[in-house]
Amino acid sequence: VLRVTKPYKLASREFHPIDTIIDVSVACVSGGKVSIGGQSVVMMAGPCTVESERQLMTTAEAVREAGAVILRGGAFKPSTSPYGFRGLGEDGLKLLAKARDEFGMAVITEVMTPGDVLLVSEYADILQIGTRNMQNYFLLDEVGRTRMPVMLKRGMSATIEEWLLAAEYILSQGNPNVILCERGIRTFEKATRNTMDISAIPLTKQLSHLPIVSDPSQGTGRRDLVSPMTLASIAAGTDGLLIEVHPNPDEALKDGAQSLTISQFQELMPQVHAVATAIGRDVITE
Amino acid sequence: VLRVTKPYKLASREFHPIDTIIDVSVACVSGGKVSIGGQSVVMMAGPCTVESERQLMTTAEAVREAGAVILRGGAFKPSTSPYGFRGLGEDGLKLLAKARDEFGMAVITEVMTPGDVLLVSEYADILQIGTRNMQNYFLLDEVGRTRMPVMLKRGMSATIEEWLLAAEYILSQGNPNVILCERGIRTFEKATRNTMDISAIPLTKQLSHLPIVSDPSQGTGRRDLVSPMTLASIAAGTDGLLIEVHPNPDEALKDGAQSLTISQFQELMPQVHAVATAIGRDVITE
Amino acid sequence: VLRVTKPYKLASREFHPIDTIIDVSVACVSGGKVSIGGQSVVMMAGPCTVESERQLMTTAEAVREAGAVILRGGAFKPSTSPYGFRGLGEDGLKLLAKARDEFGMAVITEVMTPGDVLLVSEYADILQIGTRNMQNYFLLDEVGRTRMPVMLKRGMSATIEEWLLAAEYILSQGNPNVILCERGIRTFEKATRNTMDISAIPLTKQLSHLPIVSDPSQGTGRRDLVSPMTLASIAAGTDGLLIEVHPNPDEALKDGAQSLTISQFQELMPQVHAVATAIGRDVITE
Amino acid sequence: VLRVTKPYKLASREFHPIDTIIDVSVACVSGGKVSIGGQSVVMMAGPCTVESERQLMTTAEAVREAGAVILRGGAFKPSTSPYGFRGLGEDGLKLLAKARDEFGMAVITEVMTPGDVLLVSEYADILQIGTRNMQNYFLLDEVGRTRMPVMLKRGMSATIEEWLLAAEYILSQGNPNVILCERGIRTFEKATRNTMDISAIPLTKQLSHLPIVSDPSQGTGRRDLVSPMTLASIAAGTDGLLIEVHPNPDEALKDGAQSLTISQFQELMPQVHAVATAIGRDVITE
Repeated sequence: VLRVTKPYKLASREFHPIDTIIDVSVACVSGGKVSIGGQSVVMMAGPCTVESERQLMTTAEAVREAGAVILRGGAFKPSTSPYGFRGLGEDGLKLLAKARDEFGMAVITEVMTPGDVLLVSEYADILQIGTRNMQNYFLLDEVGRTRMPVMLKRGMSATIEEWLLAAEYILSQGNPNVILCERGIRTFEKATRNTMDISAIPLTKQLSHLPIVSDPSQGTGRRDLVSPMTLASIAAGTDGLLIEVHPNPDEALKDGAQSLTISQFQELMPQVHAVATAIGRDVITE
Repeated sequence: VLRVTKPYKLASREFHPIDTIIDVSVACVSGGKVSIGGQSVVMMAGPCTVESERQLMTTAEAVREAGAVILRGGAFKPSTSPYGFRGLGEDGLKLLAKARDEFGMAVITEVMTPGDVLLVSEYADILQIGTRNMQNYFLLDEVGRTRMPVMLKRGMSATIEEWLLAAEYILSQGNPNVILCERGIRTFEKATRNTMDISAIPLTKQLSHLPIVSDPSQGTGRRDLVSPMTLASIAAGTDGLLIEVHPNPDEALKDGAQSLTISQFQELMPQVHAVATAIGRDVITE
Repeated sequence: VLRVTKPYKLASREFHPIDTIIDVSVACVSGGKVSIGGQSVVMMAGPCTVESERQLMTTAEAVREAGAVILRGGAFKPSTSPYGFRGLGEDGLKLLAKARDEFGMAVITEVMTPGDVLLVSEYADILQIGTRNMQNYFLLDEVGRTRMPVMLKRGMSATIEEWLLAAEYILSQGNPNVILCERGIRTFEKATRNTMDISAIPLTKQLSHLPIVSDPSQGTGRRDLVSPMTLASIAAGTDGLLIEVHPNPDEALKDGAQSLTISQFQELMPQVHAVATAIGRDVITE
Repeated sequence: VLRVTKPYKLASREFHPIDTIIDVSVACVSGGKVSIGGQSVVMMAGPCTVESERQLMTTAEAVREAGAVILRGGAFKPSTSPYGFRGLGEDGLKLLAKARDEFGMAVITEVMTPGDVLLVSEYADILQIGTRNMQNYFLLDEVGRTRMPVMLKRGMSATIEEWLLAAEYILSQGNPNVILCERGIRTFEKATRNTMDISAIPLTKQLSHLPIVSDPSQGTGRRDLVSPMTLASIAAGTDGLLIEVHPNPDEALKDGAQSLTISQFQELMPQVHAVATAIGRDVITE
């Protein structure tokens, strides 16, 4: 009889000692898929928010050329203010699907409410649960009833244990394809938007078998910290990166201050390869 | 032309200088209603979770006798673990309605997902939005489309500004009946479950016209702190209290450690009256 | 044999079940002393920093008339910047002593380093240990070797347990005259300078026999919150208040934004009496 | 005229655009010195606390062989409890000096109070200011009056700005030899002792010209996180590491849970070299 000493079970490494590896279909790479949680580090990049066809296509093409294999972009956007931009909705999803077709990337995008899970699943390859919804239990139940890969962002003031219990909600509905995402926590520090908890990467690796990726854009809120925090994440053992890139960050509708320019992303990629190699991993790019 | 200098408008005192007062039908008091946000402090009490008819009726009768006019109790319960008790659902709502009929109290209970707003509205007098859902924007939109009183708990790591912006979501959908609820924030302190931010009471009073109530049970997580924090809330200007009471806290399915016993609640009420009187207010009890 | 289950012993209520009451000589009251930790709430007020004879005398006279019995004022001031005002030093101490002689109040002032303990003790009736020095162990040892009353402010991110262990440093050197002071903790909230932890008042009362006072000026950093937080502190059981008052806050060299004007302090005092009376206590004023 | 837009001046990169490099005499390396803040990453290791000659010598020899060039070890130890071990004092300093003579390493050790600055300076090559003393201004003044290298740990709840202002205290007394040290901040997370703020490394590099080193032992409080956080620190641009190593961590008098074993430290060193090389730096070892 297995004795799990944690409040979560299915998410625990005691229950499932071997790393979970989640395959995602990606047309642009050889073999047609990437594995998240395995030997390779996976680069996901794109705009914070889908704003227009031109903005999305320009960004997708550029990040694909630089080596990203998964395209990020928000169609449904949580906005702290009701007067903020809340995304293009289904039109944004359609643009993401078009970019996928054109550049062979997989698509990750956020779903915010149970009633939209079916809709978003039609367009996305990975469903993203945002930080504000980490404990939206009806939403967790609903994505748990699919078999889609789900990237579960850490709540902005969630403990590691609460985060793994949120993953347990999804797993316990029968969906084993959960990817954790560290995106910074709330502290007293004012110079950064959040304090990125890099230690969460090796810690969840010990406590759980689930893959973990890092979001240094949300994690810091500052463009000038994204590259060093990307490299730090890799050195600490992250399985992937989720990076905001915008062709013209100063004109972005949301979060321009934390988006890399295309050329900054291009400059970052060789460093990503170098640090991954240094710790005995590689980066899937083609 | 009005110049509102805050990111929220409808929630601001600049936009609406006079205190918002929200009337709730309460059969057991003379006049048949209580006003939240006015001269009187309103006492809401009951079990954390509706567990059984007996538990609910016993508690409702006792807190009513002691002077509470609104009955609290969870039918849909957020649980950090998927294996925890998630409430009796509609059966719990029916028990709450039965207690309302029997004791003449109004009922406040939580709604957790947009799809349940209609259902919960049939049974409740006040809809509660829990701390984990303060930024569940589709839920805020949905309760904003009703004209029900909505009690919006502060997110466990939400700033005052984010909280008022969440209220703005509801207000901007046309529902003016928003009640704020301070329920403690997350800090480094380990001796209490949360750190109750009493300063949020006078601060929201200055920034906004909305009523505010206090939840010292969630706010501290410790039964032995509930009474002093109730009195502190009143002295700081709260419009109401939301207090967990259980006939046998040690056998409670959830949060027994923070529930008052019935006799503790009875002992608290005269002190509530005394402090309210000291600052020139009163307490509606009949 | 006593079994203390906490990491601190001398500070624990298990070791010393009866409330510690600390007498301070105060010429202006009948009997010539006030007791901190007993039946009465003690009002301490004065400027953040001693700036000039005129500023100090004006403030002392006014707060004395309004009912304060202990005069606060910094002669050695911790300043976050080396270019900030660090206080008048011994000249400030002399002015405090002069005010004591003139108005019959006791004096509380901060000592920042072991080498100054003897000097400050010559002028002060109560030694204050500031929040930044709560874990300055050589300083705690040094004030522990005196028999002066010592007011120990909570560190700005100290847990209750660490705070009581800091008190234990002083007690274990043989000085039983320790007064705790809650002055707000550091959280993510930006609208206030600190988040005042009112629950620390009843919690330390349970864990310890030591008196506790509240500093709503430092605790909030906002003048408009000082009065409600004063009343909340009293309702929660504080033994005293430490309030910054300045004859012209907008011209204060330090912390003017959190200082009450003299007339605000005068208006607050009747409310202080009313709330104290409501919970069965009184306020020593003459 | 220089316009510095920060509250600190001497610590700012605007005032001093070129990286400060601090040379420390180290007999065991070629050239007889190491430079902190330059091209090379500097490894500092040793026990949390000097416990005995045997413990210190064993550890020093082992970490020297593995490539550390600076020996850390506490002779004066801050202890949360007055009943905890407070260090061997001057006897500990003498043992550190003996280890320096024997193995050719430089010595870094903590000074806790102004009165000990002269004493500790006789034995140490680098003075360490601990997290609890980051705002012990009399101590900062005193080490500022020496010309010793001073490693200033970040206060456990200090903002980056407050930390640089504490550095400014030392610099403004005329001592330019300040090294910053990130050692984790206090958050709500309970699984780690502190949350290590890796983003502080690139952020201070932008704001300031001062070198920065990382303490992943204090920063996490968990042995199993020290190695990944060491590598993450290097990837993020740290100038050095301060690592607790103990020959038998389970018998350590203090902080054994966060000390690497000697063999863990030996295994870490090749990875340190690999990641440093990946980002274009090297590691001084001989």
